[in-house]
Amino acid sequence: MYRDNPLKKISWRGFQKLTPKEKGPYFLRDRRPYHVLTAQQFDRSMLERICDLTTKIRMIGKTKGGIHFLQDLLSEKRAMLYFVQPSTRTFLSFYAACQMVGIEPAEVRDTTTSSEVKGESPEDTVRTFSSYFDMIIMRHPVGGFAERIAWLLSNSNRPVPVLNAGSGKDQHPTQALLDIYTLQRSFENRGGIEGKKIAFVGDLARGRTVRSLATVLLLYPGVKQYFVGPKELQIGEDIVGVLEKAGTEFEICEDFEPVIPEIDAIYMTRIQDEWDTSHESRLMDTSRYHFTARHLKMLKADAVILHPLPRRKEIAVEVDSDPRAVYWRQVRNGMWVRAALMLTVFDRDGEIDRYHEDLVS
Amino acid sequence: MYRDNPLKKISWRGFQKLTPKEKGPYFLRDRRPYHVLTAQQFDRSMLERICDLTTKIRMIGKTKGGIHFLQDLLSEKRAMLYFVQPSTRTFLSFYAACQMVGIEPAEVRDTTTSSEVKGESPEDTVRTFSSYFDMIIMRHPVGGFAERIAWLLSNSNRPVPVLNAGSGKDQHPTQALLDIYTLQRSFENRGGIEGKKIAFVGDLARGRTVRSLATVLLLYPGVKQYFVGPKELQIGEDIVGVLEKAGTEFEICEDFEPVIPEIDAIYMTRIQDEWDTSHESRLMDTSRYHFTARHLKMLKADAVILHPLPRRKEIAVEVDSDPRAVYWRQVRNGMWVRAALMLTVFDRDGEIDRYHEDLVS
Amino acid sequence: MYRDNPLKKISWRGFQKLTPKEKGPYFLRDRRPYHVLTAQQFDRSMLERICDLTTKIRMIGKTKGGIHFLQDLLSEKRAMLYFVQPSTRTFLSFYAACQMVGIEPAEVRDTTTSSEVKGESPEDTVRTFSSYFDMIIMRHPVGGFAERIAWLLSNSNRPVPVLNAGSGKDQHPTQALLDIYTLQRSFENRGGIEGKKIAFVGDLARGRTVRSLATVLLLYPGVKQYFVGPKELQIGEDIVGVLEKAGTEFEICEDFEPVIPEIDAIYMTRIQDEWDTSHESRLMDTSRYHFTARHLKMLKADAVILHPLPRRKEIAVEVDSDPRAVYWRQVRNGMWVRAALMLTVFDRDGEIDRYHEDLVS
Repeated sequence: MYRDNPLKKISWRGFQKLTPKEKGPYFLRDRRPYHVLTAQQFDRSMLERICDLTTKIRMIGKTKGGIHFLQDLLSEKRAMLYFVQPSTRTFLSFYAACQMVGIEPAEVRDTTTSSEVKGESPEDTVRTFSSYFDMIIMRHPVGGFAERIAWLLSNSNRPVPVLNAGSGKDQHPTQALLDIYTLQRSFENRGGIEGKKIAFVGDLARGRTVRSLATVLLLYPGVKQYFVGPKELQIGEDIVGVLEKAGTEFEICEDFEPVIPEIDAIYMTRIQDEWDTSHESRLMDTSRYHFTARHLKMLKADAVILHPLPRRKEIAVEVDSDPRAVYWRQVRNGMWVRAALMLTVFDRDGEIDRYHEDLVS
Repeated sequence: MYRDNPLKKISWRGFQKLTPKEKGPYFLRDRRPYHVLTAQQFDRSMLERICDLTTKIRMIGKTKGGIHFLQDLLSEKRAMLYFVQPSTRTFLSFYAACQMVGIEPAEVRDTTTSSEVKGESPEDTVRTFSSYFDMIIMRHPVGGFAERIAWLLSNSNRPVPVLNAGSGKDQHPTQALLDIYTLQRSFENRGGIEGKKIAFVGDLARGRTVRSLATVLLLYPGVKQYFVGPKELQIGEDIVGVLEKAGTEFEICEDFEPVIPEIDAIYMTRIQDEWDTSHESRLMDTSRYHFTARHLKMLKADAVILHPLPRRKEIAVEVDSDPRAVYWRQVRNGMWVRAALMLTVFDRDGEIDRYHEDLVS
Repeated sequence: MYRDNPLKKISWRGFQKLTPKEKGPYFLRDRRPYHVLTAQQFDRSMLERICDLTTKIRMIGKTKGGIHFLQDLLSEKRAMLYFVQPSTRTFLSFYAACQMVGIEPAEVRDTTTSSEVKGESPEDTVRTFSSYFDMIIMRHPVGGFAERIAWLLSNSNRPVPVLNAGSGKDQHPTQALLDIYTLQRSFENRGGIEGKKIAFVGDLARGRTVRSLATVLLLYPGVKQYFVGPKELQIGEDIVGVLEKAGTEFEICEDFEPVIPEIDAIYMTRIQDEWDTSHESRLMDTSRYHFTARHLKMLKADAVILHPLPRRKEIAVEVDSDPRAVYWRQVRNGMWVRAALMLTVFDRDGEIDRYHEDLVS
């Protein structure tokens, strides 16, 4: 299908020395996204393209005929969803996206049923999947493992695309894409994401979501970012460095309420105490970073509230019915964005354009 | 698709005060079953309609062309099977029914893989499913949880039908439907269920199956019910109250053998010691309530033996090959009844009528 | 579909007294494979037929049109994959094979979710599966259980084919078939398997793979077999007896390296210490039976290296890129062989011949 295979032209050792930005081009084939491994691999035009495709897919999916059209597009493909870490939301989102574009999914979610008990290497395990399936979607606790697999398969007789559904503490690229899409869709009648004020609230130190999105937002000029949280859970120095180097405007603050009236989008996050080593989060009063019904009055009429979910108490349930609460829509956007990605990876996105054109003409 | 949405017009608090019978109309949309949550929500005409559809689907499914026709009917839909309690039979029956009518299934069966470990509320978990799927089929240990979800989704931007695959100790409505269908099919040349004598045997206190079916049978005039079991496991006072109020004929008895020659249908049940709090069942001699090869001679030539399965020793394996043993057929009926329900819920049952008409004409 | 049903004409007791060879004809219907239960049930012409079909399917599957043709063939069927023992490779291979020929798969892999916790007999559990599905693919720790089920279902109202995906310590017939196919394909320009020298290396005592394949190879005249391993893990006396009785040439040896230059195919195996009762394997030096990059030079230019996988250290990763290493191809062959079997079982293999003929003409 594709001619060039850049990951075949570099040694694993050489590849590992690259920065995330430098690795990007190696994930392409014929200048199109093939492996989806990091948030940094996307440039602005790729993001625009994926958002455009996602909206078209969303429109097409509104009719039974459109759903059948989508289901035919990749009906010759089968995908392996390999989820070593627990995940319901991301797993199901990818699973439903596969079904939507006709890819037949299979899954391995529980490491105890796997050959690993027989002493197989993780690389061999995934190479087996590539023997049976045409795409591998994986979530893995080891940072960089998905990249390792993409490199390995590219250097085998059966290269198949690898989609990273979350790896290590840093990368969850499809979450960043669905966040971008949700923001873009929320602001589509207000000039898009550029120039907007966006606040991240809560646990900014440990969430790979915030870390990814903060970086991707640098592609949108004029965005001002706010990082609102307790000192102990503030955004990492590495990200601060990246923002400073990019010369973007940002603020780090401990008080939540003063920020609310200023911003266009608020991105709430969950205190991730599953990463706690000594239950440090429990000793903190994080209720100051909860968004309650009371805060709705402070928020601009056209601002939006996002959350990657699952939530605990960061957002009161009463907020759900406010039209500015877009986090449930955000969940659903994730499915469409992933469907758009799969069509892109297999070079079938052109058919979306054609069908959509017929639809609107 | 549907115009009215009665669950949107009542508060959760108000809804909870209703009796099962009063709740029924709230599960309809445009006077048709939409949510399937309780055995009490069905009136006689709905039961007749579902039995009629089930028989037609069974006929249509006998040819390859018919199977393909069925597979096309809901091929634009995807369903979530959310089973928090262990279940193989009911799960697979729903799963196979989905496949039969073209619905693509996805499943969450193990709570440890779910977001609940991250502190998400059960309501949020299921609302996520509704973001990706067009129907939710759920088994949950908490009584009333499926109703709660149906209400919640009806009041969200994405209402989807909820099918109760067993909740708490009381409700398992699709089991009651398949039992009714099995009885109706067994008696189709003998005037149907009305006027028949039906005995429930074994653990009548704890089985939601018997409790549901006993109530539903009130819709069939002239049925006489027998409750045969040890005192400790006799049918609940609440059900006795319902039967008395309805003025139906029934008998409560401890001796099994004298009943056998009298009845038209015998509904055997399993001693459910998984509900035991202090292994009380083990101290009882329940072998008196086993149906063995010896009993076949006492049974009327045209009587039938049902069992919701799984069985232990309540029915000897040698009984299986007797034509009056219909419990394996009952299992298979469950799949067809569930397919009929799904087509009803999505308002595609009319196409079954049309295809069947062409078939027999 | 089929007229005769030989398993209905013999009692379970009578059946059990038969040798594996004598049992073979009982697994046929209309002289074609119906149940796939043992390696011994296949005669030479059946093996040739399955290899021929597999190659044709492989060719057909290279185009999108061909994939769609395959997906239509059994699109009216649903299969249950019942895997009580852990397995990733075999499970996924069957799963992908189902998807390839259009069979919709369902799975039960974890006994704790099953009705067995409610005290159901294993026979009833599988009979339930046969109520919902058109084929049962099963892996079970109890030797002969798959045969028991095939007999039981053949004597029920709903006989469905049973495919054995590994049972007990002895039978894994589809692995033997895929091994034969891999050998046949490797030697297709060198006169086929007949007359070739084939060495089994490693743990020959406990692997059902080697035991099966050694027996099946007796159908190919002139094959010389080598059994290379430590005394403690040498091939069983029963297999030696079978080979002697058949009058085939074979050698039992402890030294690996002298054998390498002589043979045409080398079948590496894993030390299966999951069967260990007292960690006896750990006390052995098995590194003498590892195939490393160094050995590549000793190997004939047209020899091939097989491994049923998963591997540990028996084959160094560097060997993978040598063209004589065919074990990854062997994995993929497994999927095609299983697809060929399913088409054979449901009597749709003729359509493969016709499509292939159009393709090459």
